[in-house]
Amino acid sequence: MPTEQYAIGLDYGTNSVRAVIVAVSSGREIATAVYDYRHGDHGVITDPANPHVARQHPADYLDGLRASVTAALSQAHAEPGFAPEKVVGIGVDTTGSTPLPVDRDGTPLAFHEAFRDNPNALAWLWKDHSAMAEAEQITALAAAHRPHYLARSGGTYSSEWFFSKIWHCLNVDPQVFAAAHSWVELCDYVPALLVGETRPERIKRSVCAAGHKAMYCAEWGGLPDAEFLGLLDPRLAALRPRLYEHADSSNVRAGGLCPAWAQALGLREGTPVAVGAFDAHHGAVGAGVRTGTLVKIIGTSTCDITVAPKDGTAAEIPGVCGIVDGSVLPGYYGIEAGQSAVGDIFNWFVSEVCAGDASLHDELTQQAAALRPGQSGLLALDWNNGNRTILVDARLTGLLLGQTLHTTRAEIYRALIEATAFGALTILNRMKEYGVPVERIVACGGIAEKNPLLMQIYADVTGQPMEISRSAQTCALGAALFGAVAAGAYPSTEAAVAAMTGVKERVYRPNPEAQAVYAELYALYKRLHDSFGVAGTTDCLADVMKKLLEIKRAA
Amino acid sequence: MPTEQYAIGLDYGTNSVRAVIVAVSSGREIATAVYDYRHGDHGVITDPANPHVARQHPADYLDGLRASVTAALSQAHAEPGFAPEKVVGIGVDTTGSTPLPVDRDGTPLAFHEAFRDNPNALAWLWKDHSAMAEAEQITALAAAHRPHYLARSGGTYSSEWFFSKIWHCLNVDPQVFAAAHSWVELCDYVPALLVGETRPERIKRSVCAAGHKAMYCAEWGGLPDAEFLGLLDPRLAALRPRLYEHADSSNVRAGGLCPAWAQALGLREGTPVAVGAFDAHHGAVGAGVRTGTLVKIIGTSTCDITVAPKDGTAAEIPGVCGIVDGSVLPGYYGIEAGQSAVGDIFNWFVSEVCAGDASLHDELTQQAAALRPGQSGLLALDWNNGNRTILVDARLTGLLLGQTLHTTRAEIYRALIEATAFGALTILNRMKEYGVPVERIVACGGIAEKNPLLMQIYADVTGQPMEISRSAQTCALGAALFGAVAAGAYPSTEAAVAAMTGVKERVYRPNPEAQAVYAELYALYKRLHDSFGVAGTTDCLADVMKKLLEIKRAA
Repeated sequence: MPTEQYAIGLDYGTNSVRAVIVAVSSGREIATAVYDYRHGDHGVITDPANPHVARQHPADYLDGLRASVTAALSQAHAEPGFAPEKVVGIGVDTTGSTPLPVDRDGTPLAFHEAFRDNPNALAWLWKDHSAMAEAEQITALAAAHRPHYLARSGGTYSSEWFFSKIWHCLNVDPQVFAAAHSWVELCDYVPALLVGETRPERIKRSVCAAGHKAMYCAEWGGLPDAEFLGLLDPRLAALRPRLYEHADSSNVRAGGLCPAWAQALGLREGTPVAVGAFDAHHGAVGAGVRTGTLVKIIGTSTCDITVAPKDGTAAEIPGVCGIVDGSVLPGYYGIEAGQSAVGDIFNWFVSEVCAGDASLHDELTQQAAALRPGQSGLLALDWNNGNRTILVDARLTGLLLGQTLHTTRAEIYRALIEATAFGALTILNRMKEYGVPVERIVACGGIAEKNPLLMQIYADVTGQPMEISRSAQTCALGAALFGAVAAGAYPSTEAAVAAMTGVKERVYRPNPEAQAVYAELYALYKRLHDSFGVAGTTDCLADVMKKLLEIKRAA
Repeated sequence: MPTEQYAIGLDYGTNSVRAVIVAVSSGREIATAVYDYRHGDHGVITDPANPHVARQHPADYLDGLRASVTAALSQAHAEPGFAPEKVVGIGVDTTGSTPLPVDRDGTPLAFHEAFRDNPNALAWLWKDHSAMAEAEQITALAAAHRPHYLARSGGTYSSEWFFSKIWHCLNVDPQVFAAAHSWVELCDYVPALLVGETRPERIKRSVCAAGHKAMYCAEWGGLPDAEFLGLLDPRLAALRPRLYEHADSSNVRAGGLCPAWAQALGLREGTPVAVGAFDAHHGAVGAGVRTGTLVKIIGTSTCDITVAPKDGTAAEIPGVCGIVDGSVLPGYYGIEAGQSAVGDIFNWFVSEVCAGDASLHDELTQQAAALRPGQSGLLALDWNNGNRTILVDARLTGLLLGQTLHTTRAEIYRALIEATAFGALTILNRMKEYGVPVERIVACGGIAEKNPLLMQIYADVTGQPMEISRSAQTCALGAALFGAVAAGAYPSTEAAVAAMTGVKERVYRPNPEAQAVYAELYALYKRLHDSFGVAGTTDCLADVMKKLLEIKRAA
């Protein structure tokens, strides 16, 4: 019997970085360590004058790398037979799009004395929305001149994405823009650091970041062409050659661990480091994504990820955020959709409306669980934070309908859960309509693990069994899995997924009676969805409240 | 200088009866006493098996009459120069439609030993909704055979009204129906009692009760004809001759105080007693109603009452609950509209959703007052208890739109107040459309007195100054006023209104800036109102959330 090998997964989140060490044969986690960022508010540097600004200091990335891996390794010694030299590969995932302006050597400008106190020289965190005006202009220009760029991005270029942020930097701080030799995504920067080659033109770039956030596609020659970027600003066209020509999936090696970091971490020099990717995409892999399996990462918002064979059927799906070749698994289209708010809606209701603390979630869930589908007469739209998929419209808001003088807060809480389930079904239906097979749904994330009521409602609304990922740290597991793949421990990424991931025993299966009621409610939800969300929809809604009362009476 | 005279007003509410004594010259209140009913739950006898049942025991009416008048008289002795023999008239208002089944002598069947424990022999309180099926049938039959009956009642005959209740009694308890020689409204029963003539055919009937609740109209010969009642049930046709042929306004005398009650109360025998009416109608008089003045009685629900000259322009107003010749002031159409829930919506939000106590109203009001119109981005429909005017549809429900992840409970509270103001404006507009002049609005009721924010919002939304009735007991004052009129103390009811009623100094005047914002919001409210409330309305609502965001940004 061969000795067990191990892989390290690094998961850079919004507030902390986590390092896990897993057994390569099974994906079993033997150690995990978290480093909380020191700068700003839990790692996020804001601007009191502009609520849209969210930045990070790259020092947190370096300090977190060293501290989390060291702590995980020291923990791993409890595993019989473990030794640092048995770590065969390292994978990395991060938030994104989180680009950093860097100099010719790839050193972040934030480390330059000249820009020490300049927030624009920091990493531009995924949730920085200061580039809204630029995003709108990019969307408009692409719609007019390069509609195919938008087709793979759900039709709208976001303020959270690569070029919006770079252009905004150019507009508000031309000095930082001029000093930046190039811009590097965090998920490319960390592997570059580990392999000791940070010069921008030599960095292996993630196709996940490139394809989902920078309009990169091999079919049209990589990044947006210089002529198009010149329509934005000639200085962006001039930047293009200093960005990158090619991007890779995470089964590709970024390189081998450099001597300096090998020594710092106590690992073997030359240990393969995989090309990075975004957290949700690696999370989907850690949850067992494959053709026919949709992974739902359910948290404050939701990310829905699946893959589809590259036979062309799923190349463009209207309203779906991103379809990128190889962004999840090499050789497949990675398909990403999502709901702008799920847990955030329940948190809003509990803390803002009910003025309750976390324990109220349990209380309301318990009361809501005692209700029958349709019994409340309520119907809600899950748009408190806009609609990411399939309407791609941040300027939509919430709606609650059907309340009487007897409506309880538990009924509202359940209606909000149901609304998010209807939103999930809408995404699912859109994918299926465009030929993406979804035979299984695997959920992960805190809410999926902790809220059986929500899981049952999702099963009843979608009419599909809801499974839960075995690992609670699917992002870090996915990163470690790619570390193992980059090390050659498996013949293919699919084989690694089959061996290293799995689901829990408990499966939530649809209840046919509930399913029938929810089919009626969903028909009404869809009418409100289209009436309020789709320009040009005309409908007579005068029957909606009465149909709800009929469903209520029947319940 | 002539000696002051006094009048007594009796106001029979849902939970208690109030007696006031006022100076005839000015309407100044010199004494007030309240008697809380003893039966049931604060006077309301319910049925655990049927939540729609609400009855009252007539013993409470008699006990309350004696106790409240006696207590008020004893209080009045503090007034210099007062003596019971200076009481020149008595007026009465009550809830309604609250009919009692009575025997040949006018004795309520509830006092018969045989029906002692039978709730159907009690008074059928206004809010008893057990006759919903009968109401729907009456509406359908009238629409088919006597559409003019409905035209004066807003197009729908209610389960709360006279014939629905009597027919329901016939259907569920034919023994009580058979034993009832006739049915008498509470507002007719109390004056009949006072004048000592309770034989049904001799009782002076209120045109307010008859016209608003029993489809009575002099133009078509009084009550609905026997042929029509026969379509409901032949036994109802047979009852018709035992009801009444004629009904009067409250300036008419029901008679003089009988010896027994004169002795019991310590008043002069023969003191004129006015024909009764409903509380809201006398309340409007006590608040100073006249042509061009709309009185809004704002409480848990709202009653809007005005009068219009009988030149025919305002004879029929679609969706307005009732238009009855003489029901408010003799010689004018009495026009009654209303909102099914106002304070009840705020109470629901505070107690059911926020789980707060009464003090939370003050807290939320204070926070809501700090917001600018449009600032929340919220819009609500005030239909948690259906819509009485102008849609006349109990099967409508609430709606809240525009919530984000940052929406506060104070913003929702304000949106609910605004929704009721928009509902009020919708009624106002409908009245004006049909030629009813509304130059002044006078509010009364607890909320009007206690909530300056609501009053200011109503002024800003309607674009009209909001005045407040000087008296806090407008119903009882209106009753006393008719006592004075019946006594001949004034040459006309109008003269009595001019002398005995008035408004407070503080007037809420529209703020032009707020008015402009509310005009934009009202346009959106009206679109939701029609889309969800008016069958056949088709509209594209996809701009509603975005318009709210624009208004929000501008605010």
